[in-house]
Amino acid sequence: MAAKLELHEDRLFPSSPAERAIARELYQSVQDLPIISPHGHTDPAWFALNEPFADPSSLLIVPDHYVLRMLYSQGVPLEALGVKRVDGASHETDMRKVWRLFAESYFLFAGTPSRMWLDWVFHEVFGLREILCAETADTYFDAIDAALRTDAFRPRALFERFGIETIATTEDPLDPLQHHAKLRDEGWGRKVITTFRPDNVLNPETPGFSGNLDRLGDITGCDTATYSGYLDALRNRRDFFRSHGATASDHGHPTAATFDLSEREAADLFACVRGGNASPEDAELFRGHMLMEMARMSQDDGLVMQIHPGACRNHNAPLWAAFGADKGGDIPMRTDYVSALQPLLNKFGNNPDFTLIVFTLDETSYARELAPLSGHYPAMRLGPAWWFHDSPEGMRRFREQTTETAGFYNTVGFNDDTRAFLSIPARHDVARRMDCGFLARLVAEHRIRPDEAFRIAEDLTCNLVRKAYRLG
Amino acid sequence: MAAKLELHEDRLFPSSPAERAIARELYQSVQDLPIISPHGHTDPAWFALNEPFADPSSLLIVPDHYVLRMLYSQGVPLEALGVKRVDGASHETDMRKVWRLFAESYFLFAGTPSRMWLDWVFHEVFGLREILCAETADTYFDAIDAALRTDAFRPRALFERFGIETIATTEDPLDPLQHHAKLRDEGWGRKVITTFRPDNVLNPETPGFSGNLDRLGDITGCDTATYSGYLDALRNRRDFFRSHGATASDHGHPTAATFDLSEREAADLFACVRGGNASPEDAELFRGHMLMEMARMSQDDGLVMQIHPGACRNHNAPLWAAFGADKGGDIPMRTDYVSALQPLLNKFGNNPDFTLIVFTLDETSYARELAPLSGHYPAMRLGPAWWFHDSPEGMRRFREQTTETAGFYNTVGFNDDTRAFLSIPARHDVARRMDCGFLARLVAEHRIRPDEAFRIAEDLTCNLVRKAYRLG
Amino acid sequence: MAAKLELHEDRLFPSSPAERAIARELYQSVQDLPIISPHGHTDPAWFALNEPFADPSSLLIVPDHYVLRMLYSQGVPLEALGVKRVDGASHETDMRKVWRLFAESYFLFAGTPSRMWLDWVFHEVFGLREILCAETADTYFDAIDAALRTDAFRPRALFERFGIETIATTEDPLDPLQHHAKLRDEGWGRKVITTFRPDNVLNPETPGFSGNLDRLGDITGCDTATYSGYLDALRNRRDFFRSHGATASDHGHPTAATFDLSEREAADLFACVRGGNASPEDAELFRGHMLMEMARMSQDDGLVMQIHPGACRNHNAPLWAAFGADKGGDIPMRTDYVSALQPLLNKFGNNPDFTLIVFTLDETSYARELAPLSGHYPAMRLGPAWWFHDSPEGMRRFREQTTETAGFYNTVGFNDDTRAFLSIPARHDVARRMDCGFLARLVAEHRIRPDEAFRIAEDLTCNLVRKAYRLG
Repeated sequence: MAAKLELHEDRLFPSSPAERAIARELYQSVQDLPIISPHGHTDPAWFALNEPFADPSSLLIVPDHYVLRMLYSQGVPLEALGVKRVDGASHETDMRKVWRLFAESYFLFAGTPSRMWLDWVFHEVFGLREILCAETADTYFDAIDAALRTDAFRPRALFERFGIETIATTEDPLDPLQHHAKLRDEGWGRKVITTFRPDNVLNPETPGFSGNLDRLGDITGCDTATYSGYLDALRNRRDFFRSHGATASDHGHPTAATFDLSEREAADLFACVRGGNASPEDAELFRGHMLMEMARMSQDDGLVMQIHPGACRNHNAPLWAAFGADKGGDIPMRTDYVSALQPLLNKFGNNPDFTLIVFTLDETSYARELAPLSGHYPAMRLGPAWWFHDSPEGMRRFREQTTETAGFYNTVGFNDDTRAFLSIPARHDVARRMDCGFLARLVAEHRIRPDEAFRIAEDLTCNLVRKAYRLG
Repeated sequence: MAAKLELHEDRLFPSSPAERAIARELYQSVQDLPIISPHGHTDPAWFALNEPFADPSSLLIVPDHYVLRMLYSQGVPLEALGVKRVDGASHETDMRKVWRLFAESYFLFAGTPSRMWLDWVFHEVFGLREILCAETADTYFDAIDAALRTDAFRPRALFERFGIETIATTEDPLDPLQHHAKLRDEGWGRKVITTFRPDNVLNPETPGFSGNLDRLGDITGCDTATYSGYLDALRNRRDFFRSHGATASDHGHPTAATFDLSEREAADLFACVRGGNASPEDAELFRGHMLMEMARMSQDDGLVMQIHPGACRNHNAPLWAAFGADKGGDIPMRTDYVSALQPLLNKFGNNPDFTLIVFTLDETSYARELAPLSGHYPAMRLGPAWWFHDSPEGMRRFREQTTETAGFYNTVGFNDDTRAFLSIPARHDVARRMDCGFLARLVAEHRIRPDEAFRIAEDLTCNLVRKAYRLG
Repeated sequence: MAAKLELHEDRLFPSSPAERAIARELYQSVQDLPIISPHGHTDPAWFALNEPFADPSSLLIVPDHYVLRMLYSQGVPLEALGVKRVDGASHETDMRKVWRLFAESYFLFAGTPSRMWLDWVFHEVFGLREILCAETADTYFDAIDAALRTDAFRPRALFERFGIETIATTEDPLDPLQHHAKLRDEGWGRKVITTFRPDNVLNPETPGFSGNLDRLGDITGCDTATYSGYLDALRNRRDFFRSHGATASDHGHPTAATFDLSEREAADLFACVRGGNASPEDAELFRGHMLMEMARMSQDDGLVMQIHPGACRNHNAPLWAAFGADKGGDIPMRTDYVSALQPLLNKFGNNPDFTLIVFTLDETSYARELAPLSGHYPAMRLGPAWWFHDSPEGMRRFREQTTETAGFYNTVGFNDDTRAFLSIPARHDVARRMDCGFLARLVAEHRIRPDEAFRIAEDLTCNLVRKAYRLG
């Protein structure tokens, strides 16, 4: 018989009795606060159209790059997990078979955040009470599949059940935002907002860059053959995004490099990249220059600027060729911030009305670079532990390595950064538990007072998020 | 009513009952040992002239770059904190207003070492018993201001009350050391000593470098137009500093680079930098060469050599232009030691009579580079957690990441490295508590015996400091 | 009187009562499992010839670079420790004197793994019950010396007593493997196996590289003047090693760089390095290319491939000149894996039948690079904490920083990597205790179930080792 699936009420709290008791009290004060999700990748169509989700595997396995990478690392072919090949060659389409394969490999996730998120989904969303393993695979599949066909499991119902106050999706400038328009018209405009993510029109190394700029011109009526027209088009789309709820932009460049070019240099560089003749150095220079321009536009229009650098995308070229992007083949890189951000911070970082939120995949930058920078520049805030580090140990390291220099008030609360909609409450729950555990240690070691800890726990959960992202 | 200000007797000790009990006993054995402060930035004039300190804000806020950076990061202008502008434009001169601004923002420091240091100063030095907040701002200001006007709060009285055995200040070679001369003449010569910090005559990128060398020539009677005269002048000033108590030199170059140039190459390079024609590469080469020369002179005259590399000074250029240096705008950088120190260590590192103490702002070098290097070369010792890492978590990481390779006996005890004189006991107290907590864990995990822990606690507090810095 | 030497039964377990109780139970389930040592540097002659070990100092001090480096760092000359000089100048030959010097400095090792390993050897192997110090030096020397003269302390007796199932030694391709042949003939062929370590014929910067290739040609009958003959010779020796038990190769290059050259480029490069004309860039390129060839051969012959990069060998040039290699003068370097391994992983990393085990001396790569890479590529596994990081804190950081992304099942259990034969059980014991302590924390924090922890503890101790190294 399969073991019982339990979510212990003290999970993730430190085992020291003194710390655990405090952590529990702190957590009780924030566990039911609304979920604010200012950065993520859910599909706005879910909320706009409110159609039922598909089968268990299509919902929980196929799109989850954390799940795919672990199974693939242990020799499970992506085809067998139902992932479509670029070349159209066959892949598993029997979603029950996919689920069984996942179930029998589920032990591999021991000690990973995916395991905690998924167990929460199984237990709390679907009411399952045995662990997932080969033996229970079909029970799970049937139970989840049946639930997904009911109205209670449609996106909007889950949204309300989860206690989400606001969720931000991420779209590129060429997106018509029709789902956000529908949501706005139906009174969901403050619940589901968009984020302006212009990588595909800022990064000359994006496949189809030139065509993207043509389309950007078509959409905006600006002449994107010229540098000034290009800037106008970007301003135009930022306004359009703002009218669809956006309070932030987001930038996922390979590095955090920023460059302060003259107007003339910028125009010349634009001409070069527009013509498709950008060398890798040109491309880097252009991206870095455009971060400066984005900061300048943020000063004007008030969009909060987020930078998420440091991922080596599609490290596994054969896998990328076979299955496309976002299948678990991205790898973090060592990332510099001190020199990279200096031009931008020197130009805009002293303005307390501008907000720049910086993330990292290189934890060595927490104590050495990012806490010192965000603990000094009025414009800069430090984003939470991200992606590979969005995990209990990752969050613990984040607080341990940033708090002493940046404090709590130069951080911005939690981002779930996910398209795995059903796991969003689990992810916020992990963050709340880890923050409360960290605060509990500070209280137990008499480094902060209990009343401060309660205040900070609430600030980390809601107030700092709303303030940093200009929500509500 | 404001909450009570308490300093818990178990603060900073691990919450695990077994570890806490051991930590408490270890701490009791070292808490009253004298303070030895072999590296810092207090003003020798304080001790020489023994004049009263000024008002609370001028003493505790305006000169504290940790305090300035946190408040500035949250949008408080430096002018409002009473910091003078370079251009002479107005700044707040009502020190009570400055104090109120600080008081209402004091919650920002939760979880930072500044908070622990300041609370200690408020509680132990000034006897305050309510927390600092907007409500208590005036009470605080009045109480501190009144105390500072009494003889019991003059520098020498506090020095004695704090139980300081020796404090080292830091001066550059052009300093006449008149305060140290007075102290020496009045019997305070072993209590307050100087440190030879020649950056402004070794680093060609120092503003005014050429003029500094002219003055160095004037002071010493050596011909600093020639390389040999320049070296003579440096030897001359080292002797002068030694006669004013110096047992150590200190070097704050951007990197730890050292270079082994021939006599001829060095002379040619000197001619180039002396003429003001140094490229950035020349400057780096010259600094690296001069570290070699400083090591050579240390072999001869016995000054302990300290290297503090890795700070990107004045990262915030506009702030630097407006307010000058040391206002919180310095940022750590990734720093290499393995290649950088190899020339120096190969030449002088095998000499057990020479001592080189190396510090870092890049914690990634602890386990990877600095513990292995100091755990091998007889001349090298590892300085304590520094600046941004002079904090409970920073000290914990230091011991966790260095002890297994370097042991305790290749470290040199604590440096407070501060000009915040009133907080010096608090800083040493934090270090003693964290060291005792670390040792307690090793005992509780049966990795060292209790008798060893007591011996090591005392060695870290006093014996290793005196030995490494050749004091007493 | 000297203090009592004790090995506490709970040593290294967390002090939190809840965690300690679980750790103890987990440990009891694995403490008596056989030792599998798939990577190390013991001398096969010991097991083949089974002659008694020499005196205590020659066995425990002179060959131990951890011991030498600590004593040397505190000013003890290597000559006084009985280490031979290259120039034949005198060194201490009275091994009792060497032992006394060691004994009086033994306190330096407090907090280091050497101390834990050695105390285990003293207590468990030799039955000593007082601590080692100046006072007990002679008692120790006499007791150990007497024991070593008995049959119970010959290598094979200790091998059996230690419960070793398999141990791998490391030899270079020019080694005749006569000891392994003898062992095989005497039925010890599965107990003591070799490992193919071809650095001295792959790395053009090896002293004597050209002569090594000549000898490789002589041994194999292949024409190592040509590139194809060179590859044939390597294949030939890999087969020879496999026939002497090898299941793995090992590569200790300065970096992890791999390069994908064309056949033609490779042949031209070989001609260049074969002729002794390799620049440093050529040498790096050739090493990186040969890692690709080794991977290709591993695909064919099934040898598991290990990469141990990132050591700056012989950092202390004067010491190296005086005493030769492996005297404690190697220092870790910052090491990149993301770009370095991309060519190899793109070519061979998607093959689940090929196994690449990667190690690091740069702990910053754990969470940022190595866990993400090994948590994705089916061929890649992550080797355990190595060398400077083969220690309680090092192991704790390894699990904390890798588990959330790579899980447990992309790791390969423990390597002792040592020539200090008597300490092998102690080293495995430390690893088992630390793994159980880590698992205990996950259980106590309700992140994994107890039944999982027991399974994982056993897998880490034996099953993952056997599987990864293709043993048994």
